[in-house]
Amino acid sequence: MIGMDRLVQHRERVEARIAVWIAELPANALYAPMAYLMQLPAKRVRPAAVLMGCELFGGKVEHALDEALGIELFHNFTLMHDDIMDDAPLRRGKPTVHAKWNVNTAILSGDAMLVKAYQLMGRNTEISALFSRYALEVCEGQQLDMEFEQRNDVSLAEYLAMIRLKTAVLLSCALQVGAAVADAPPEDRERSGRVGEHLGLAFQLRDDLLDAFGDPDKVGKQRGGDLRAGKKTWLLISGLERSKELHRNELLEELAKAPADRDVDRMLATLKELGVYAEAEAEVARHEALAMQELEAIEVPDTQKAPLHAFAAMLRDRVH
Amino acid sequence: MIGMDRLVQHRERVEARIAVWIAELPANALYAPMAYLMQLPAKRVRPAAVLMGCELFGGKVEHALDEALGIELFHNFTLMHDDIMDDAPLRRGKPTVHAKWNVNTAILSGDAMLVKAYQLMGRNTEISALFSRYALEVCEGQQLDMEFEQRNDVSLAEYLAMIRLKTAVLLSCALQVGAAVADAPPEDRERSGRVGEHLGLAFQLRDDLLDAFGDPDKVGKQRGGDLRAGKKTWLLISGLERSKELHRNELLEELAKAPADRDVDRMLATLKELGVYAEAEAEVARHEALAMQELEAIEVPDTQKAPLHAFAAMLRDRVH
Repeated sequence: MIGMDRLVQHRERVEARIAVWIAELPANALYAPMAYLMQLPAKRVRPAAVLMGCELFGGKVEHALDEALGIELFHNFTLMHDDIMDDAPLRRGKPTVHAKWNVNTAILSGDAMLVKAYQLMGRNTEISALFSRYALEVCEGQQLDMEFEQRNDVSLAEYLAMIRLKTAVLLSCALQVGAAVADAPPEDRERSGRVGEHLGLAFQLRDDLLDAFGDPDKVGKQRGGDLRAGKKTWLLISGLERSKELHRNELLEELAKAPADRDVDRMLATLKELGVYAEAEAEVARHEALAMQELEAIEVPDTQKAPLHAFAAMLRDRVH
Repeated sequence: MIGMDRLVQHRERVEARIAVWIAELPANALYAPMAYLMQLPAKRVRPAAVLMGCELFGGKVEHALDEALGIELFHNFTLMHDDIMDDAPLRRGKPTVHAKWNVNTAILSGDAMLVKAYQLMGRNTEISALFSRYALEVCEGQQLDMEFEQRNDVSLAEYLAMIRLKTAVLLSCALQVGAAVADAPPEDRERSGRVGEHLGLAFQLRDDLLDAFGDPDKVGKQRGGDLRAGKKTWLLISGLERSKELHRNELLEELAKAPADRDVDRMLATLKELGVYAEAEAEVARHEALAMQELEAIEVPDTQKAPLHAFAAMLRDRVH
């Protein structure tokens, strides 16, 4: 399939650009954590989206490699700081930066990483303004995520607003930046942004689903980790709302226990019985469909859309 | 004195711009810490420098107010994060952001504050590139500062390189940004940058001097706080080097004690006897003179230089 081949090529280009970037970094304690985090195996979804956005409008992907790298640096900066805030020991199976070095190093190196990202997003004032707007939204999403951890009454609408900010907008930004590099007309850029936003929502909901119902061997972590931790994902919030309507207590009973004592299989079975699993799958499909609908409305040759079709299919079928 | 009046006016303009900015912030937990930090009484040296750089080259100061605000936001972002790293409970006599809220809030709000700074530094690609370059140097300075705390063999040259990055380059950046807003020729912008760098070094050395020898009532903190803490400032490093040459042990004896037991008056007397006090005063004067020399070489009417002359005089005579 041509689209998938292009997508693989995009990722290879991104990896090559990252390798050059790492090789050129000064060898000192400020930059070492950036190099460490950037060389961990990753999907490179966001930088690939920059290249797809550029190619969609007939731009040369080579011209958007700096911005692709910039978006990936920004994403990794958020990971470095989020991992401190979440007190996470591991990232992609390896020690997080603050665990390997210390919190101060992770704060400062993250700050410098954001500056490095800006250096790559500075081709013109339009692109840097776009980037700033979405960078702020990502911070707002993280703020909501932290607030929600302290609350027990987060609604599904609030959760969706949070993951839109925390996850989806950066994919939207990536496509728009690529489109801007290709000098696409404003209305097309906005449309590509909506493609990215729906794909981003589908991506995050799929993540939640895989955590709960995926094959642990393929996902690479214990099944139902979010449920065990009582994390308010789409599945749990929806499950609790449905339970309330139907006067069912399984989920509340499990959440009342200490995390280690929770019967995750019972929680999963309950979510399936309540129809939450099916509904989440439908929600992923709905956002994919909305993304494809926006994509169809962009009037460019189909070949230029192929990688985005492949990307959507990958989201649909992915198992990790 | 005309220059001093202008300087006071610049500060008032900056304060007014900050007040408008605070009033327009969304009322939520991400932005509240920014508003809190920005409304604490401060000297506004860096934003005033942006306006002085603009006026120096005949620009209208009103046109540089966004950039002045952007530099002050950046400076406060570094304070918010540095205070976490230093575990500082107070900033300008008030609780630091991480003490008043928590560390996670201070990390995230600081991140968003850096993005807000970039939004104001995005007038053109030249200004944002200049800003990024110096923002990275400030991070490098903070990195060195943290490393130096773990070392006992920091030389005077290393200390000067560190404060150049951590303090002086931002004043250099501020003047150059103002000059860029006024569309000054490249060589004049660079010259104004050197004015700022020398003034910044004088400013930081004066800070060290005031901490040790200033009037505690005017400085607003206990005399010799840095010395008691064993902080390796210019004074202590120079004092230790001189002590070694002269086989004197007073400073080492005091440093061997626990901070609370140190005889700060003895340390101060020793520094005076060693000639370190006089040498530091001479060093401040030398950097002021170099700054004025660079300023003289800029060919603009003297009236446009008046606020910078007043600023240098203020650095020379300041008691807090």
